[in-house]
Amino acid sequence: MTNVLSPPISEPVLDAFRAALPDGAVLTGEEELREFRDPFAYPTWDEYTASAVVMPTTVEEVQAIVRIANEHGVPLWTFSQGRNNGYGGPAPRVKGSVLVNLRNMNKVLEIDEECAYAVVEPGVRWFDLYEAIKAGGHRLMLSIADVGWGSVIGNTLDHGVTYLPYGQDMAMQCGMEVVLPNGEVMRTGMGAMPGNKAWHVYKRGLGPTPDQLFMQSNYGIVTKMGVWLMPWPQCFMPCWLRAWKQDDIAPIADTLRKLMLDRVIEGVPGLYNTLALASIMSRRADWYDGDGPMPDDVIDHIARELELGRWMTRFALYGDEDMVDLKFRKVKEAFEQIPGAEVWGTKCAPEDIPNLEHPGERIVGGVPSLDWNYMTGWYGGEEGGHIGFSPIVPLAGPNALAVTNLLRGLVEQEAQLDYIVGLLAVTARSFANITMVIFDTKDEPQVRRAYDTAKLLVRQAAKEGYGEYRAHLDFMDLATDQYSFNNHVYRRFTETIKDALDPNGILSPGKQGIWPKSMRSG
Amino acid sequence: MTNVLSPPISEPVLDAFRAALPDGAVLTGEEELREFRDPFAYPTWDEYTASAVVMPTTVEEVQAIVRIANEHGVPLWTFSQGRNNGYGGPAPRVKGSVLVNLRNMNKVLEIDEECAYAVVEPGVRWFDLYEAIKAGGHRLMLSIADVGWGSVIGNTLDHGVTYLPYGQDMAMQCGMEVVLPNGEVMRTGMGAMPGNKAWHVYKRGLGPTPDQLFMQSNYGIVTKMGVWLMPWPQCFMPCWLRAWKQDDIAPIADTLRKLMLDRVIEGVPGLYNTLALASIMSRRADWYDGDGPMPDDVIDHIARELELGRWMTRFALYGDEDMVDLKFRKVKEAFEQIPGAEVWGTKCAPEDIPNLEHPGERIVGGVPSLDWNYMTGWYGGEEGGHIGFSPIVPLAGPNALAVTNLLRGLVEQEAQLDYIVGLLAVTARSFANITMVIFDTKDEPQVRRAYDTAKLLVRQAAKEGYGEYRAHLDFMDLATDQYSFNNHVYRRFTETIKDALDPNGILSPGKQGIWPKSMRSG
Repeated sequence: MTNVLSPPISEPVLDAFRAALPDGAVLTGEEELREFRDPFAYPTWDEYTASAVVMPTTVEEVQAIVRIANEHGVPLWTFSQGRNNGYGGPAPRVKGSVLVNLRNMNKVLEIDEECAYAVVEPGVRWFDLYEAIKAGGHRLMLSIADVGWGSVIGNTLDHGVTYLPYGQDMAMQCGMEVVLPNGEVMRTGMGAMPGNKAWHVYKRGLGPTPDQLFMQSNYGIVTKMGVWLMPWPQCFMPCWLRAWKQDDIAPIADTLRKLMLDRVIEGVPGLYNTLALASIMSRRADWYDGDGPMPDDVIDHIARELELGRWMTRFALYGDEDMVDLKFRKVKEAFEQIPGAEVWGTKCAPEDIPNLEHPGERIVGGVPSLDWNYMTGWYGGEEGGHIGFSPIVPLAGPNALAVTNLLRGLVEQEAQLDYIVGLLAVTARSFANITMVIFDTKDEPQVRRAYDTAKLLVRQAAKEGYGEYRAHLDFMDLATDQYSFNNHVYRRFTETIKDALDPNGILSPGKQGIWPKSMRSG
Repeated sequence: MTNVLSPPISEPVLDAFRAALPDGAVLTGEEELREFRDPFAYPTWDEYTASAVVMPTTVEEVQAIVRIANEHGVPLWTFSQGRNNGYGGPAPRVKGSVLVNLRNMNKVLEIDEECAYAVVEPGVRWFDLYEAIKAGGHRLMLSIADVGWGSVIGNTLDHGVTYLPYGQDMAMQCGMEVVLPNGEVMRTGMGAMPGNKAWHVYKRGLGPTPDQLFMQSNYGIVTKMGVWLMPWPQCFMPCWLRAWKQDDIAPIADTLRKLMLDRVIEGVPGLYNTLALASIMSRRADWYDGDGPMPDDVIDHIARELELGRWMTRFALYGDEDMVDLKFRKVKEAFEQIPGAEVWGTKCAPEDIPNLEHPGERIVGGVPSLDWNYMTGWYGGEEGGHIGFSPIVPLAGPNALAVTNLLRGLVEQEAQLDYIVGLLAVTARSFANITMVIFDTKDEPQVRRAYDTAKLLVRQAAKEGYGEYRAHLDFMDLATDQYSFNNHVYRRFTETIKDALDPNGILSPGKQGIWPKSMRSG
């Protein structure tokens, strides 16, 4: 299951793509292709590079691309915006693949105020949908990811996290249109019935529901998706909980679970360690110039200076003002049982969210920005990079403590890097431990050490019973290797479906460890 | 795609099943098989009848059954409890199938109080899980269906409705174990990693999520499932809204949508017409002895006498008492904008729910019973039957009005039966229009008319853009025929997967319109 080299793309194939697409929609220049590498790999590394980029604007053009790829046996690699930079960005798993860049399919097709949903194309970014809602005068909120340049569809297909109430348990996707590997267009759920009125208000149809099969896979190219929106509450209240001791993570996790199980806290709260928030507000060099991991006393200094404590928890309350007041009292009472913990928040009307100073508060209010990108500059400034390592963990004190101690030890001792983490409570019962391995992309040994450490984390976490919810290109195979129950039956199941739907193996070979028959060893 | 007759089962095959299973676990007697027919079909009809019943008690026995079926080309038809009586009960689509009866796999394997979930086998009924939670002293509530004898897994696999907060958008399933058509055991989500701690707290794994593929399909036999439970709230408040005019359904639907979108009302409210609730409290003969549909003045008489109005809406509030009080004020204020509408409810502690007099209030409190079975006796008393016809409709006034008027007209004019309906708001944006076509099973022409009318409803509703969320055996093919977008691409997609996973076509052929290659025409 090592990387498979495909032959360089031939002129007749490029001509076929050019004939099927608008002028300028096929890129092959070296300079043009540079944009579509793993953005944080060391510049001379060339394992995950493409041979061409095709940019369809319509569903019919996507179908044409798929047909040409089948005819010529060309591996495609699809991305919507390709901004999942901590996981490899738009780069393909198989060197020489043709990138299907969906950024030009960027229409917001529908916004339904009454039933509170939108229908979007894959190129639509958080920014675009937010602006379209505003432009239409709709009093609706969108659950967004950290950085506004990402694709709504792309993030969803990667099981990406968003933070508002519909972010919890990934509730917001409803109804898809997909181009299958054979070039046919399918609609899921109620959309499989022509003229059905419930396509974007009910997530199933009659028969098995395929939507989740098109997430984290290579079974089709999603060309439309329904997105549930939340009507404006009367009152929005971003809140913070600050705690001063490293081990406070345990009682925080337990208290948060109870508040989420009782639906007092909705959405996806984030528990950030000192350095996670410090990296948004400052540079490492402002505090420390040592080579190894930052010592505890420096972290404590930052914790005091930036008033971050050792853990800051961000969450928000949404509802009528009397409801929000009641919930805030309950939350404050519960969290302040933890010695030294403080809870605060400031209410505002939905129309005032864009004016909030703290980008973290705007994010839970559904207003996108690029502010959190600053984080990756901790070491390298403009040239900073990061790798995400993200196992799922039960939202319970002992687990939270065990996994943060384990990963901190590995990041500090193996990579000699600072431990920067956000624990995102993606359901009331579990959190994604988003370990941000941040490095200076100009420092090759540091980049190499970061990539190698991420692989070590995959193995060590799996030994303790924690699995990645999403994997970087560079260790997709390794991460899926850990899902080995009953002699890898799940992988063989996904391969059986792959071979049936995509016999020529043209769609994103290797994506999430799913390889077509022709590229499988053994 | 007409019914396919399989050859009668041979003695060597029965011997193989007997050798693999405990004594008495293979039934073939005519009397024994009678229990497993479509319970409401006229007694002489024999289209959906089995040749044998096998009753495994372990996962290994399920695997053995699947292997024997593959070896001998025997069609199996699996059910958990087989109590979905309005949709055909345990009966197989293909005459002569061997029923895999999972009632003896009835263990509650785990109840986790901290993370609030249970893990069950397919034979576990609502009754069983409720009792196990009680016996363990767990302060956890289960979202249940109307009738307590059904299987938790079986209901989930059919996209069945439950009523508590986790019933909304079918939120409660988390993690499965499945015996695949080739006899291998697979675990989904995080369960695909041996020893993973998050199998039942996070619904995905790494790669595509197959769980929903095993619902309403014939791709595997589910042998374990995680079920999310809700910690006891301080206060439970079952509530009712009564409205007196037939057209009030429109403002009720609009108001309910807003309250659900704002999460003031959680769970799955039900909007019942007069006769739906009258059928739980009385018999038709108590009110009317005419042959055709009951006239409006008689319905109005019942509405007054039983104090039901023309529409009764049931919902419940859950939370700390101050939260419930606040929500109740909001709900009452909103609904009482509708002229003549009245809202009431009574608070109680969770421990007192079993003592509530009204079975409908116990259901939204998670306490199962058989009381709502009484409904089917409207015409025939003990011999009553019903067919469920259940399209999904946007939760909006004009749609609610249009679909109830359409279906009422068809049921009354074509079947000459009373129109009995519950609109179940399965999400904040949509409801399942559960039309209960109720008849006397001893009256063959009435039964035939009911079955024929259901098929007419399927066609007519589809013309208006409304599709079934679940289909009775007798019109599974017809119902799936309506999902015909792009020359039935969705059906062909499900067939492609079927053929890949189950090349011998042994698992539940014809289930939800999915036929294996050997049984497909054309």
